[in-house]
Amino acid sequence: MNKKYAELIGNVRKSKPLIHHITNYVTVHDCANITLAVGASPIMADAQEEAADIASISSAVVLNMGTLNVRTIPPMIAAGKAANAAGTPVIFDPVGAGASKLRNDASDAILKEVKVNVLRGNISEIRFIAGLAAQTKGVDASESDMENTDDAKLIAKGLAERLNCVVAITGKDDIISDGKNIIRIANGNAMLSCLTGTGCMCSSLVGSFCGANPDTLLEAAAAALLTMSIAGEIAFERAGARGNGSFHTELHNAVSKMDAEIMLGRAKLYEE
Amino acid sequence: MNKKYAELIGNVRKSKPLIHHITNYVTVHDCANITLAVGASPIMADAQEEAADIASISSAVVLNMGTLNVRTIPPMIAAGKAANAAGTPVIFDPVGAGASKLRNDASDAILKEVKVNVLRGNISEIRFIAGLAAQTKGVDASESDMENTDDAKLIAKGLAERLNCVVAITGKDDIISDGKNIIRIANGNAMLSCLTGTGCMCSSLVGSFCGANPDTLLEAAAAALLTMSIAGEIAFERAGARGNGSFHTELHNAVSKMDAEIMLGRAKLYEE
Amino acid sequence: MNKKYAELIGNVRKSKPLIHHITNYVTVHDCANITLAVGASPIMADAQEEAADIASISSAVVLNMGTLNVRTIPPMIAAGKAANAAGTPVIFDPVGAGASKLRNDASDAILKEVKVNVLRGNISEIRFIAGLAAQTKGVDASESDMENTDDAKLIAKGLAERLNCVVAITGKDDIISDGKNIIRIANGNAMLSCLTGTGCMCSSLVGSFCGANPDTLLEAAAAALLTMSIAGEIAFERAGARGNGSFHTELHNAVSKMDAEIMLGRAKLYEE
Repeated sequence: MNKKYAELIGNVRKSKPLIHHITNYVTVHDCANITLAVGASPIMADAQEEAADIASISSAVVLNMGTLNVRTIPPMIAAGKAANAAGTPVIFDPVGAGASKLRNDASDAILKEVKVNVLRGNISEIRFIAGLAAQTKGVDASESDMENTDDAKLIAKGLAERLNCVVAITGKDDIISDGKNIIRIANGNAMLSCLTGTGCMCSSLVGSFCGANPDTLLEAAAAALLTMSIAGEIAFERAGARGNGSFHTELHNAVSKMDAEIMLGRAKLYEE
Repeated sequence: MNKKYAELIGNVRKSKPLIHHITNYVTVHDCANITLAVGASPIMADAQEEAADIASISSAVVLNMGTLNVRTIPPMIAAGKAANAAGTPVIFDPVGAGASKLRNDASDAILKEVKVNVLRGNISEIRFIAGLAAQTKGVDASESDMENTDDAKLIAKGLAERLNCVVAITGKDDIISDGKNIIRIANGNAMLSCLTGTGCMCSSLVGSFCGANPDTLLEAAAAALLTMSIAGEIAFERAGARGNGSFHTELHNAVSKMDAEIMLGRAKLYEE
Repeated sequence: MNKKYAELIGNVRKSKPLIHHITNYVTVHDCANITLAVGASPIMADAQEEAADIASISSAVVLNMGTLNVRTIPPMIAAGKAANAAGTPVIFDPVGAGASKLRNDASDAILKEVKVNVLRGNISEIRFIAGLAAQTKGVDASESDMENTDDAKLIAKGLAERLNCVVAITGKDDIISDGKNIIRIANGNAMLSCLTGTGCMCSSLVGSFCGANPDTLLEAAAAALLTMSIAGEIAFERAGARGNGSFHTELHNAVSKMDAEIMLGRAKLYEE
């Protein structure tokens, strides 16, 4: 792996970027703590009256559709527009896109009104946004959707080109593309899917890396997913046998101790 | 104990039922993780615009009144009705019933509009719903209410018969009845009451077991409470001396590793 | 240290006061669990329809502005007024005061409508409320604001005198004043700032101590901050090297095991 990916985490820890989240109430605590664990500073603020103000003082904005309700869609758009105006990266996590009309309409509205810089989802969500048939089952990717890495590469590249953004698909392998380049990450552990919020935490990490490295979003998004994937491996080695509770603890431990050296030693990141 | 209870957990892990929750923002993260730990798949969606849609693709619906607000009562009723129409089990956790007029009115409305299949609460909440004097102190059962197991059996059986559902009362002993049969579980550990959300997690487990075993709700509800009670014992043995944080971790570990063999070896479940 | 501070925790564990919270959805789970860990009983209820009812049966009310939205400001005021009428202590945590007009207006409204008994914040938030220039960066105190302990003492004392309440500033050193007396706590560990919610948990502990010791709020607030500061030290000793996840677990362990003896052995509390 090119050293440049591993070096980006140092910028996060050095610059402590403020990361504005408008997100769900299920995994928000994990998102805040993982943002702190990687060295950034989280702020969660979803009121229409302050969303744009907070976005405009932040280094990245993360919009996450989990537990979506109609009250929080306008603040998401307001925060996204304020970030666009300031040149601040916007990360969009379309949780459950494809699962209900509300979520489908909201993801359409956000993508229409806001210039999204990184779109981060599972393959079922990204397939839906790409206009392809998806087999969304609730908020988790279907297994049949996850099987085909070549398919994911094509979808990521095509959608990234069309939306002029970075598309990051997490799954067994993670695929990241800016419409020209494709990066594949083969790190990770299946136990990550046994905890709620590992996808949401990925989006928070993408926000943290992009906030600290705004001029290199493709590499920043890849480094963020690499961080979570390697942390999942370490957590499994230390705690997989003990169960989900200890795995959760060790996942946060691993992100908080992640550095360039660990990443270089373990990365299975391929520019394809 | 009859083997049938222990065997139901295998169906949860095999069928991975989607469990729709409309629940509170205090314990929702634990509810999602315990649902995953037992092998089911959680989805939390409380917007009126999607509640019925999500309920209709789910295998069970869990309605929980913690941090109740007027916005979420109509989606609870809509989700409940959609589940009823699809023949999907509805679990109702009347958190804090008896503690305020808002909660009393909401529990009345839900029980009137929705056919509840399993009612899961502490003895103070269930006493209130049964129309008996309860000494609710906030959201926890009063100690005087918890003392009398014979009383709990009578109340569970009578209320189950009247509502034509399963009533599951958690406490020192757990009592489950469908109006004819009574099951008593003498497993558990007092330290479970030192964590927030152990009651809510019980309801999520009831949802998970009922979603995977819809034709045998009495046994499914009992097996769910047995899972939590045994997990509480294991967590206490491993971490009670270390404190509440480690107990929380070990509780999630124990549920994630629970299987029929562990349940058969430890169960103190009595058909009475 | 005078023994009286350490003895107050015994009253919390003995009387198990009910602590009503209207708080944010990021750290609410930690707040509920830390309240239980210190021996009190949490209830979270933010609906306008029940806020005053719940406040009037509680032993303390904690109002916390994290993830503020316009819907929850009126219930905060209603709960505060009900507590005032009952002579119940009100703790106010002005999270992010200074960071947006919404939060500034809300803190003004709460301080105008409700008699606050303990104001608990970081130095940036308290500076803002005192009408001084603050360098709020999101919801965390700025480092430059944190440097000057003498400054914090003056601000705490002056603001406490003006508002006729106890002001508790958490930071490297904690400063507590009732407008006449000043208490400084030199315990704590920098790793506390690597977790979300350690400030919010301080406010929950202040609520728990004040609920059990309503006639001695200055000492109760100090004992609450001492509890968290010492727990932070213990957690760091046990788990700092492992990372943020284990530190979180050990923090909850340490609060759940805290007693007068541990506090007397470690306290660096000075009446100045």
